[in-house]
Amino acid sequence: MTTLDITQMDLEQITLPARNVEAYLSAFLRHRPLPENLKRAIEYSLLSGGKLVRPLLVIRCCEAVGGKPEQALAPAAAVEMVHVFSLVHDDLPAMDDDDLRRGKPTLHIHESEAMAVLAGDAMLSLAFELIATRMKSADTALEVMRELSVGTNDMIVGQVQDTLPLEPSDQDPIDRLEDIHKNKTGALLRAACRMGGICGGANAKQLASLTRYAQATGLMFQAVDDLLDVTSTPENLGKAVRKDAEMGKLTYPGVLGLDGTREQIASLHTEATVALEGFDHRANPLRELCDYLAVRQK
Amino acid sequence: MTTLDITQMDLEQITLPARNVEAYLSAFLRHRPLPENLKRAIEYSLLSGGKLVRPLLVIRCCEAVGGKPEQALAPAAAVEMVHVFSLVHDDLPAMDDDDLRRGKPTLHIHESEAMAVLAGDAMLSLAFELIATRMKSADTALEVMRELSVGTNDMIVGQVQDTLPLEPSDQDPIDRLEDIHKNKTGALLRAACRMGGICGGANAKQLASLTRYAQATGLMFQAVDDLLDVTSTPENLGKAVRKDAEMGKLTYPGVLGLDGTREQIASLHTEATVALEGFDHRANPLRELCDYLAVRQK
Repeated sequence: MTTLDITQMDLEQITLPARNVEAYLSAFLRHRPLPENLKRAIEYSLLSGGKLVRPLLVIRCCEAVGGKPEQALAPAAAVEMVHVFSLVHDDLPAMDDDDLRRGKPTLHIHESEAMAVLAGDAMLSLAFELIATRMKSADTALEVMRELSVGTNDMIVGQVQDTLPLEPSDQDPIDRLEDIHKNKTGALLRAACRMGGICGGANAKQLASLTRYAQATGLMFQAVDDLLDVTSTPENLGKAVRKDAEMGKLTYPGVLGLDGTREQIASLHTEATVALEGFDHRANPLRELCDYLAVRQK
Repeated sequence: MTTLDITQMDLEQITLPARNVEAYLSAFLRHRPLPENLKRAIEYSLLSGGKLVRPLLVIRCCEAVGGKPEQALAPAAAVEMVHVFSLVHDDLPAMDDDDLRRGKPTLHIHESEAMAVLAGDAMLSLAFELIATRMKSADTALEVMRELSVGTNDMIVGQVQDTLPLEPSDQDPIDRLEDIHKNKTGALLRAACRMGGICGGANAKQLASLTRYAQATGLMFQAVDDLLDVTSTPENLGKAVRKDAEMGKLTYPGVLGLDGTREQIASLHTEATVALEGFDHRANPLRELCDYLAVRQK
């Protein structure tokens, strides 16, 4: 498969629209009246060289069904704000208590815990403000809002399942793991793909295919994350490693072993690729993005 | 003025629709798949006998312009979720560190800090999900979403100004106090009134009047809160008292004294009443609600 030889130049092509999303977010924040310290805190977390996988999915799914990237910029920016809000709150001392994120001190270390709570809250509701104030068609905005809000809530459900599990169930560990990750990582990736499709004018069949692509890619993304957590270093990842196992959380390598996890990644990669079979060359960036996500090293 | 003799029966009449909002919220939560512990945490905070001032404003503003209460139930329920999310996060140890709310242990005491963070996050985004999935007209939903999102963000701005003030400014203390409260309490009350007006089909002039009513009522609400904080007891209010002054926060009694605060309340009450002069008898519940808020004892 092509996944094994993605060059730096390919990667730059694949992630090209990410810079437009950053510029869009930066302009949105510049125009939104906010206290200086709050704005600084949001920019510190939001414009810090993240991978912008979710915005890329929004834009590439919009293109895959024939839309222009500009049509998807607002939801692309919004979904990144939701993602970063979740990172900032997850890192809090009462949650995962992480000091390092994207190679920098986490926001509660850099500013204060109060600011991390409030800046997270602000990013979450600014995401909805962005959609509500920047999108022109009310019908599209409402559909997008539905995807984003349901995706966000399902993500929070995943956090609760992961951080505050209910009594041990008799569910198979791999089923339970997939259940958690369908919510924790999958829900927002799914919302991203569907929002992109909606903005590009996808028909029901295309939207269903993008949803299947998103579901496979979402689980694959998490399996790669779990794998890197075991095989990589804090220097490379820019965040602490091997904390999940220490905290007793379910992980793919924990349940399937390293080889099993690699097989799972390959199988999910195939599933995502197959979901795109009905699309023409305009889905190539989406195919390449999935290839990249299967072999990413950080 | 009528404010001095509000009987228990009057009060029940004024707050009648609040029970419908609670039933609506309860049904919404029953139908939304959520882990048991998250649902329990949300219900603990959300359905705990609050005053439901914001939902009442939504419904009474809808009626004032000729709408039916049912048209405003979704935004009424949503604004209460946003309000309660803000209380739960404000009470966190890293924020105001409060143990008591509505006469019960705060959520982080009752459950855990992690659950208080996550349940707060969930209530915030469930509020947007509720609007996005329950409102029928896309145009109205988008307008409502705009009010709710901007109001929420301005409220968070007020929290930042209040909790993490920037360098001391040379602004007059009363101007600074009003600045904070226009955001902290005012923004969501303003959103509540405007959402109600929008759902009831208000014209531009009516919406402007409701906005003036909301702004005066918002500042008055906060002045009464500050007054009760000095003159009442934790037993009566169901929360800690005199913490604001201890934490060095600006308050109306701190800036204007007790008598000055009472005069300010009377003057804002008049301002709110005058704003409703163009409305007929259908605004009477709104007038009575303002009367009640001026003299409330908890």
